[in-house]
Amino acid sequence: MTRKVCVVVTARPSYSRIRSALRAIADHPDLELQVVVAASALLDRYGSAVQTITRDGFTISQRVYLLLEGENLVTSAKSTGIGVSELATAFDNLAPDAVVTVADRYETLATAVAAAYMNIPVVHVQGGEVTGSIDEKVRHAVTKLSDLHLVSTKLARERVIKLGEREDTVIVTGCPSIDIAAEVAANPQLDFDPFERYGGVGQRAELSGGYLVVMQHPVTTEYERARAQVEETLYAAKGAGLPVLWFWPNPDAGSDDTSKGIRVFREHERADGFHWFRSMSPEDFLRLLVNATAIVGNSSVGIRECSYLGVPAVNIGTRQRGRERGANVIDVGHDRAEIAAALGEHARRGRPASDSLYGDGRAGVRIADCVAGAALSIDKHLTY
Amino acid sequence: MTRKVCVVVTARPSYSRIRSALRAIADHPDLELQVVVAASALLDRYGSAVQTITRDGFTISQRVYLLLEGENLVTSAKSTGIGVSELATAFDNLAPDAVVTVADRYETLATAVAAAYMNIPVVHVQGGEVTGSIDEKVRHAVTKLSDLHLVSTKLARERVIKLGEREDTVIVTGCPSIDIAAEVAANPQLDFDPFERYGGVGQRAELSGGYLVVMQHPVTTEYERARAQVEETLYAAKGAGLPVLWFWPNPDAGSDDTSKGIRVFREHERADGFHWFRSMSPEDFLRLLVNATAIVGNSSVGIRECSYLGVPAVNIGTRQRGRERGANVIDVGHDRAEIAAALGEHARRGRPASDSLYGDGRAGVRIADCVAGAALSIDKHLTY
Amino acid sequence: MTRKVCVVVTARPSYSRIRSALRAIADHPDLELQVVVAASALLDRYGSAVQTITRDGFTISQRVYLLLEGENLVTSAKSTGIGVSELATAFDNLAPDAVVTVADRYETLATAVAAAYMNIPVVHVQGGEVTGSIDEKVRHAVTKLSDLHLVSTKLARERVIKLGEREDTVIVTGCPSIDIAAEVAANPQLDFDPFERYGGVGQRAELSGGYLVVMQHPVTTEYERARAQVEETLYAAKGAGLPVLWFWPNPDAGSDDTSKGIRVFREHERADGFHWFRSMSPEDFLRLLVNATAIVGNSSVGIRECSYLGVPAVNIGTRQRGRERGANVIDVGHDRAEIAAALGEHARRGRPASDSLYGDGRAGVRIADCVAGAALSIDKHLTY
Amino acid sequence: MTRKVCVVVTARPSYSRIRSALRAIADHPDLELQVVVAASALLDRYGSAVQTITRDGFTISQRVYLLLEGENLVTSAKSTGIGVSELATAFDNLAPDAVVTVADRYETLATAVAAAYMNIPVVHVQGGEVTGSIDEKVRHAVTKLSDLHLVSTKLARERVIKLGEREDTVIVTGCPSIDIAAEVAANPQLDFDPFERYGGVGQRAELSGGYLVVMQHPVTTEYERARAQVEETLYAAKGAGLPVLWFWPNPDAGSDDTSKGIRVFREHERADGFHWFRSMSPEDFLRLLVNATAIVGNSSVGIRECSYLGVPAVNIGTRQRGRERGANVIDVGHDRAEIAAALGEHARRGRPASDSLYGDGRAGVRIADCVAGAALSIDKHLTY
Repeated sequence: MTRKVCVVVTARPSYSRIRSALRAIADHPDLELQVVVAASALLDRYGSAVQTITRDGFTISQRVYLLLEGENLVTSAKSTGIGVSELATAFDNLAPDAVVTVADRYETLATAVAAAYMNIPVVHVQGGEVTGSIDEKVRHAVTKLSDLHLVSTKLARERVIKLGEREDTVIVTGCPSIDIAAEVAANPQLDFDPFERYGGVGQRAELSGGYLVVMQHPVTTEYERARAQVEETLYAAKGAGLPVLWFWPNPDAGSDDTSKGIRVFREHERADGFHWFRSMSPEDFLRLLVNATAIVGNSSVGIRECSYLGVPAVNIGTRQRGRERGANVIDVGHDRAEIAAALGEHARRGRPASDSLYGDGRAGVRIADCVAGAALSIDKHLTY
Repeated sequence: MTRKVCVVVTARPSYSRIRSALRAIADHPDLELQVVVAASALLDRYGSAVQTITRDGFTISQRVYLLLEGENLVTSAKSTGIGVSELATAFDNLAPDAVVTVADRYETLATAVAAAYMNIPVVHVQGGEVTGSIDEKVRHAVTKLSDLHLVSTKLARERVIKLGEREDTVIVTGCPSIDIAAEVAANPQLDFDPFERYGGVGQRAELSGGYLVVMQHPVTTEYERARAQVEETLYAAKGAGLPVLWFWPNPDAGSDDTSKGIRVFREHERADGFHWFRSMSPEDFLRLLVNATAIVGNSSVGIRECSYLGVPAVNIGTRQRGRERGANVIDVGHDRAEIAAALGEHARRGRPASDSLYGDGRAGVRIADCVAGAALSIDKHLTY
Repeated sequence: MTRKVCVVVTARPSYSRIRSALRAIADHPDLELQVVVAASALLDRYGSAVQTITRDGFTISQRVYLLLEGENLVTSAKSTGIGVSELATAFDNLAPDAVVTVADRYETLATAVAAAYMNIPVVHVQGGEVTGSIDEKVRHAVTKLSDLHLVSTKLARERVIKLGEREDTVIVTGCPSIDIAAEVAANPQLDFDPFERYGGVGQRAELSGGYLVVMQHPVTTEYERARAQVEETLYAAKGAGLPVLWFWPNPDAGSDDTSKGIRVFREHERADGFHWFRSMSPEDFLRLLVNATAIVGNSSVGIRECSYLGVPAVNIGTRQRGRERGANVIDVGHDRAEIAAALGEHARRGRPASDSLYGDGRAGVRIADCVAGAALSIDKHLTY
Repeated sequence: MTRKVCVVVTARPSYSRIRSALRAIADHPDLELQVVVAASALLDRYGSAVQTITRDGFTISQRVYLLLEGENLVTSAKSTGIGVSELATAFDNLAPDAVVTVADRYETLATAVAAAYMNIPVVHVQGGEVTGSIDEKVRHAVTKLSDLHLVSTKLARERVIKLGEREDTVIVTGCPSIDIAAEVAANPQLDFDPFERYGGVGQRAELSGGYLVVMQHPVTTEYERARAQVEETLYAAKGAGLPVLWFWPNPDAGSDDTSKGIRVFREHERADGFHWFRSMSPEDFLRLLVNATAIVGNSSVGIRECSYLGVPAVNIGTRQRGRERGANVIDVGHDRAEIAAALGEHARRGRPASDSLYGDGRAGVRIADCVAGAALSIDKHLTY
């Protein structure tokens, strides 16, 4: 019998990470794909994923609005609650046999809570990793609410098993985000003009001499420092003497302050080499990365995809604390001098080799196979 | 500096379990107690805890309505979501330094989610235990969202530590429900008439020759069998030839069916020795128990408080699966013959001895001391 | 082109009132019926309308849970808000060309608000009437949010036009509740045993010598007096010396107190001739009425259907204040002596004649024709 | 006894309109002011009113987040529902004796619905006016939910009475927005540099030779045309050859499209004379207006405050349709040529005289006196 598998897509980056799995689920003879698009994935101002998803050939089964405006701690909590309630309606309408939830955002938790209370088996992708901030609590709470764990690394598998999950329910598939990276790495030329294709704010720059990509999100446990933190990165990037391609942050507590820091910088400093983008297609973004001098900020992309792609990364602050990393990463604090020093060190070391720590490019197919073949019970117990 | 400690009370039984801690927090020189009363604790039809709480001398800081009517899986999920959103408002108004959440209900999870996203330290009481059904997922998910773990038994502590929590944040306080049991055990005479004091439905019975107490909740993963399951217990209780004091179930998915099973039985069978109660004060309930011939059903009271009180318990079905138990418990399936046989076996064995497995009667004071003395950080990581 | 017409059914009585219109919409060649079942119409404890609706041959398009437990003023307001939000999701999924909302309950208002903000034309049935309490505010607010007004009486039409609505958008169809009354009146024998078919609480009674039907709802602006008010009716009914068939109230602020008054009466008084019902099918209920000695209470049934059926009605208190009434109604206060006197007066007067004040039995067909033929714009202005 | 009067402020412009009433309520010996700040008034990206309100010396009693992100018709409806539910909590905490709601936005309706169901008297300011779009439905629905009507003009009073409200509950106070206009008109010099004080986007311009102020909101019943409509205004303003001071629109369905239209214009056209502002203090904004050559767009400010101030207004499209207007207004369609022609006609006519159509500058004091002196019953009926 065909299993109906519902994947909840909640943001452009998380769509990027799960897309190859969506494709493999849609193509699997024993599975029927249901796509729920929710939260910032629906919103123009964060780079709506709707058009991308549709252009990629997927049908959107339900749209779920859940973000309460405010971007502070209260509205984060309330958005999570609205998400649980609204996703329950979507699951009630779609009656899936399994729900797939990705990573560690509040929509991830909302998805797992709604499905668990509705007795629908929960499949968690990207569990067992260790980072900083509230994501850490949420990721492992989602593990405890989930019935099947499709993880990125061997170490992640060991951790999920230590968390009391049965060994046969924890499988290393690799991270599906690496699947796109593998495609891009096979054909890495920068074959488009990002300024022309994606607009954004700022002047165009000549990219053939190298450039920085910057992506910095507020850290929810430190959100009152978001503005000061982004300023260090802004001045370090300015000092590097390279064009800077900067991506706006996710909608989280603190993102208003991060954005304000950027806007003030833009108004008071000569930011000639800077250009701000909302978002790009996953392929274009990775293609931009693979050709970059380095990535700077606190996005997991610097650690995950850039490890496979062999792109030097300067990882700032606590947000990725505890995440496994390859030789492409240098960690620094929120300090413009440290950031500058790390960029210098990367220049001395040269290009890192590709590393399959987070996957080999076949995660999507493995995820679909696991979801099709797993026992999918909702009844589980601590193994100790 | 005085710490503001917010305790969320969500049902009459959970109030009973935490009351000695409320008292100790209110009395502690370094703590200020905030009481949020929510969910079924506010509702007359489940035995409102409001009057009891007020009569016990506590001030109610906020009332939070969160139960969406329907009592099915969709409304359970949606009630959890409403709970997260509404409790976030309450915490925003009260600005506590720590939030205390108890056990494993959906309000427990809603409390932990709301507090975690608002960067408020979460204190979880009764973590690390093992049972059946959705509670199992929720309890350990709450552990992963919590910062301080005040557990009932040594085995529970070991489990929470295995779940990756730091050893210094996991403390055996015993279960505060045992504190009331200890008071009652010190002075155990049945000094009130339950029919007169609590009304209820059914005729009065002579209790001096022994009686059964029955408490049976629907199991959310088996809720379509709720009615058949309660019928086995009804007929077994009828067959025992003793007066039966029956307590209505909690508002969960399936409780409408459990209630319907009871109502149909009542209309079609001679239920002369049966009497149905909504709820009682914790002391009166425990006093009724300590004088009972046995407790029958699937309430944790049979395993926890009755272990301390030395009351024979017939535990039915999967709901308490995995919970540590003392010599007072005989486990059976949903089968009237098995239930009858267990009652016979208890009669042969005689009264069990008191067992301090779940506490020694000083949990409340220990909880208050721990909350006052703990470091209370919101920043944590897996220990492996 | 076929118009998709979405009717929101929110309670058993309102289903009864609109059923002939549902039938006529489903049968109309230019209309497609969508049925949304919401609120207490979904709940067993208020007599779920789901089975009735399905047995009547209608397909339920969406189920919308919106009742927040508590039954006080805060939860009434919050349930209205939840209703607006949840119905918006339903309308988004169903994309109707018009939404039909009935009468003056909070679900009526929630329906009108959600549809109006979604630019869906709103058809209001039963506008322009005058009663007491919050219903009065809500009914006329719904008129101002609606685009097509299908009213029961000529006077109602005049009032809606005075409220500034365009004359061509206000049409007297009669009330569809009279359609069922007309069917029953054509064949009025009591051809079933209500005790056997509907169970309920209390002993069976011999009905051939006459009986009272009682239906009393709490009045939301007086809800703290609900218990005292119902007691007057209970004692008056007891004093009448006839069997009493009593129907439980709707879930509104105050209904817990009304129910408590009934339960206390039942436990303390000999209520031998009383029998309590949850609900009945519309036909059975009207058949019971047409054979009754009188109807007592504050339900609109006494004024509307009973006017057509020629059943003596004793209307108590303010709830129906201002509603047009025929010769079958005697109005009294919440006073057992007044109620008794009115029953005596009815006995002297004898059976009233049938009156077509609220309709001639063809309202459903007229409603379908109006919805199919109307211009259905969402753009409107005060006519003055 | 002092009356607690709760005023719900939901947006910067509505704060501006009601501020003199807040002041008068706070100063009134028989009244206690409660200020609830909600919706876009809390959000930085729409120009948070929080700092302004605090700086004006008012204490914020509760903050209510209710805007669900999406800015389409579904999220407008859902935000209204969330507003009803969240405001009910606020009113439950504050227990006001009366709630004041202003104008015709969805927060206005949410406020009136929540208060009405909680049996709190509702005072509606600015009822009885006639405009286009959904506001028209909402304004009169709020009238039907309200108990005291404090209107701006004699004609508005006549309309509210025709709507069936009792004459003694409908009082012409004038619009409190005119109170600030009167203060500014008494001392009209442009004594600040708007570019320096408010930042914004675009170059600074020399204002001494005249300038246009533009404010254009999407119309919810035409929201799919929002982008085309704003483009006509953009090109007309560009063609006028004067500096253009443009204010961003409110968060409504369609405002994303309006904003996108502006952003595309800014990127593709030389917009040298344009400057974009988020918001200003009421006084600064009116001071900017009184010195402007003209106001262009569809804001009610052009009709209300500018009538008193004697500022030429070009009113575009349907949004203000039906609103009473003075000699300072010329109405045009969404057409750049019509807009240009109207600016030319204003230039020929010269400066209009001040008109007290919407008030004489004493509305705030009258509102406070009315709220203090009114009977404030929640029980009302149609007068016909």
